[in-house]
Amino acid sequence: MILTVTLNAALDLTYRVPHLVPHASHRVREVTERPGGKGLNVARVLGALGFRTTVTGFAGGETGRTLRTLLAADGAGAGRAADGDRGSGTAAGTGGETAAVTDALVEVAGPTRRTVGVVDESTGDTTQLNEPGPHISPDEWERFLTAYRGLLEQDVEAVALCGSLPPGVPVGAYATLVREARTAGIPALLDTSGEPLRRGLAARPDLVKPNADELAGITGTAEPLRAARAAQRRGARAVAASLGADGMLLVTQDGAWSAAVPERLAGNPTGAGDSAVAGLLSGLAEGLPWPERLARAVALSAATVRAPVAGEFDEQTYARMLPSVRVRGAETP
Amino acid sequence: MILTVTLNAALDLTYRVPHLVPHASHRVREVTERPGGKGLNVARVLGALGFRTTVTGFAGGETGRTLRTLLAADGAGAGRAADGDRGSGTAAGTGGETAAVTDALVEVAGPTRRTVGVVDESTGDTTQLNEPGPHISPDEWERFLTAYRGLLEQDVEAVALCGSLPPGVPVGAYATLVREARTAGIPALLDTSGEPLRRGLAARPDLVKPNADELAGITGTAEPLRAARAAQRRGARAVAASLGADGMLLVTQDGAWSAAVPERLAGNPTGAGDSAVAGLLSGLAEGLPWPERLARAVALSAATVRAPVAGEFDEQTYARMLPSVRVRGAETP
Repeated sequence: MILTVTLNAALDLTYRVPHLVPHASHRVREVTERPGGKGLNVARVLGALGFRTTVTGFAGGETGRTLRTLLAADGAGAGRAADGDRGSGTAAGTGGETAAVTDALVEVAGPTRRTVGVVDESTGDTTQLNEPGPHISPDEWERFLTAYRGLLEQDVEAVALCGSLPPGVPVGAYATLVREARTAGIPALLDTSGEPLRRGLAARPDLVKPNADELAGITGTAEPLRAARAAQRRGARAVAASLGADGMLLVTQDGAWSAAVPERLAGNPTGAGDSAVAGLLSGLAEGLPWPERLARAVALSAATVRAPVAGEFDEQTYARMLPSVRVRGAETP
Repeated sequence: MILTVTLNAALDLTYRVPHLVPHASHRVREVTERPGGKGLNVARVLGALGFRTTVTGFAGGETGRTLRTLLAADGAGAGRAADGDRGSGTAAGTGGETAAVTDALVEVAGPTRRTVGVVDESTGDTTQLNEPGPHISPDEWERFLTAYRGLLEQDVEAVALCGSLPPGVPVGAYATLVREARTAGIPALLDTSGEPLRRGLAARPDLVKPNADELAGITGTAEPLRAARAAQRRGARAVAASLGADGMLLVTQDGAWSAAVPERLAGNPTGAGDSAVAGLLSGLAEGLPWPERLARAVALSAATVRAPVAGEFDEQTYARMLPSVRVRGAETP
């Protein structure tokens, strides 16, 4: 299975209002709730591709309870929920049936944070409000580490370490988790930003997936290829940088490639980065060559931009885009 | 005891952000949660004044559970939580100890709504987002009516019927509740707006407390005294109209009065109307003359505007304002 870690999981609320006016009062027309946080989003996409996925991280309080109930309901609705031993090797890109996501979240005392996305129906734009997350005690962090080590002893093909850190978790947390994965012989992908990314790089993750801003933030270089090489020198074995509408750039020890879809797609980019992680991770788990992993990531990103619901991906767009993604060798600067 | 009804109770969230920018992403610096909905706010003020208060209405889901936990915690923190038989006649206005609020909410299947108030710390202004509330089934409404009738058989001195109706509750709900109260010989105060207020008026409540906009909305008259008289003709025995910084206007069968504090107070008006209801209700329960009820309502409103936390009232301001409120006879137009 594939393991995703979300230390600062969230209950994602989406509010639709006719028109958002600062300092006014609004009746919300429609409310949707779903499990959120990068690693949970990645797991949802992997599940939709037919990969068995386990999620861990922290959950607590009534919001955590709601998150876990929704996660279980997602699984119950999935085509393969009752069939946990499906192999993951054949489904991706073939429109395979959905696999259930297994909940291995660690219960904590503090309540899981909420995020509120306010969609202005007059413009389609979203105003985002993100709670900081619960304070994690040293004891809770130790309990997580024990649970994480236990999961790594199972049949994990790859692990993704995703998102921000809640208060109380050591800033070097991802470095610790990368080292534990290497000790267990499991490839690790790191998708975070700022100081947690900087520290995580030093532990030599197999792959990091910053966006252009995050990459520039840690390397001081705005030119993507140069910045990706700099991130490699800081410890990442490979760097996949998401460049928005310009697609992705991948720098590895075997070569460098860039990839994009052949057409500009209008839509909502929310979750496109998480879908890219799912694409990279699924290709890693299957042992695909790097250019194919990259193509999958780019096609999934594009299919996410085109989906009517933020953070989901449009299966038809994915099936159409995957063979049309242009992967080119990237020049060294 | 005093009974307050909140059919569309809420879990009120307050988010503090440094500066609210539409269509941007924000890290929320501070989150506070508390029981909300007009009747629950009224009960909190009554409790702080030392009146035994019971709240009913609907609660459901994880948000309802959080609301009830917070309500119980408020009670546990109250000075009189363990002493349920305190008389209510002596405490108001004397800085009496806080009384616990008794939870008689009716459990429903749908989740209690949230409201989110986003405080922009750069301006102090609040942007409000209110969820619509759970759908109430006919069976749940019947269960509520049974519970309400049971409560009216207890030692209820007055009942307040407060706020909007959740989906599924008949638009004539407040008319039904007013009639039940009259059958039980208990004075009823109605604080709602729009069609539920229009229908409720026809059932002849003892007192309605619209603000100037709500009053104009149902009477078509923007001049407050004229509009209050019109509301009386539609069925209200008395009308207390809150006029913002201009204080309040009270029209009864015994006379008409206006009242205001002698100074303009800067602050946050959130909850000032609910505090006014608490003032009117406490005076009604004690059998005070109308001008004294009005003075109490105006002083509590002013003390709420001055409180550092939205919806609470500043006890010192209340004690200082109460003797200084100017009550004058109002001319008939």
